[in-house]
Amino acid sequence: MRESMPKWKKEELEEVEYEPKSIKEILVEMKNISELIVDLAYSSLLFNNKEIAEEVKYLEARMDTLNYEIRLIAMLAARSKEDAEKLTSILQIAEAAETISNAAGDIIKILSIKLDHPILPRLIRESDESIRKFVVSSESIAKDRELSQFHIPSETGVRIITIRRGNRWIYAPGKGESLRPGDMVIGIGPKEGLDRLGELLEGKREVL
Amino acid sequence: MRESMPKWKKEELEEVEYEPKSIKEILVEMKNISELIVDLAYSSLLFNNKEIAEEVKYLEARMDTLNYEIRLIAMLAARSKEDAEKLTSILQIAEAAETISNAAGDIIKILSIKLDHPILPRLIRESDESIRKFVVSSESIAKDRELSQFHIPSETGVRIITIRRGNRWIYAPGKGESLRPGDMVIGIGPKEGLDRLGELLEGKREVL
Repeated sequence: MRESMPKWKKEELEEVEYEPKSIKEILVEMKNISELIVDLAYSSLLFNNKEIAEEVKYLEARMDTLNYEIRLIAMLAARSKEDAEKLTSILQIAEAAETISNAAGDIIKILSIKLDHPILPRLIRESDESIRKFVVSSESIAKDRELSQFHIPSETGVRIITIRRGNRWIYAPGKGESLRPGDMVIGIGPKEGLDRLGELLEGKREVL
Repeated sequence: MRESMPKWKKEELEEVEYEPKSIKEILVEMKNISELIVDLAYSSLLFNNKEIAEEVKYLEARMDTLNYEIRLIAMLAARSKEDAEKLTSILQIAEAAETISNAAGDIIKILSIKLDHPILPRLIRESDESIRKFVVSSESIAKDRELSQFHIPSETGVRIITIRRGNRWIYAPGKGESLRPGDMVIGIGPKEGLDRLGELLEGKREVL
């Protein structure tokens, strides 16, 4: 299976360091990726946003890595027929999670088809909302401070759907989460609110 | 494709009345189902809840119907090579949406496997949260009133993820939504909050 992967995916896999994880941790991350990747795939299509589509590709590669790891661990863990039955169920869930992630990858492939008049975004986009990816600057006042201090939803109408820190995703950022320079932040909301949030994260604005 | 469907799916399809829809409406609903069905499939697994798994089956059948309808409309709509190109992209999205929905269906199949000691819910459930399905009683004070009047999130900690009214789903119920007797409501939250919400919707309680 790894043989047939596109080159960038292989590179991504090789970059990921092998850390021993539990089956539980892997399943939880696969669940989180399945939910996030479907959201991001449709969003990148609706808002015709190739940067977000890149995140879908990263998540798809991450899902491949996790599926490979969970298979390895499951094989090594099976000691009895009962173990094997449980582990088979777990691998079925992992397989379904990977199918979902691949389908999200198929959705974003539409973005690379060149049409003279792209029909899709106009077809289903309905509001003045948009999606945007930001990188937290070391100059930003938001650096190392809790997200909740900035009252982002009430001040800007923006919902932060994920934060990526290197190769690690924070899937549903909670109130206690704080930002670090270099963090990649994805938000959905009104364009004007996204502009202000971007200025804050880039260090060009002190309050929202 | 319809030939190979399980019997209950066919019955579901036959029940659905044919209403002419636009490609846009169908795509929007397919997107909404993809997002909801992944959430519900993992939730039914985590909380070992077969009632929620039934909703996943309904949504899967609904997705099949929509995929059939969108193909039909696309075939009839193609008048030029350019049309055909656009419509092909749309059908690719529809195909991916159906793949997601089928994978969600695969996830809930695990629930029907009889294991002596089910390992999965214990493996990944982490909080005292649960998911529950309610039916709005004609005795309920919530009947025909706006949901927002009851301050459900702040009073109970429960997030309502969908409402089903007969064969129609309200995917992300907004503040202006009102409930009707017979509506099926799915909520996730602390067990104690779900109990109180249930009593309100069943007409056994007047305030939350």
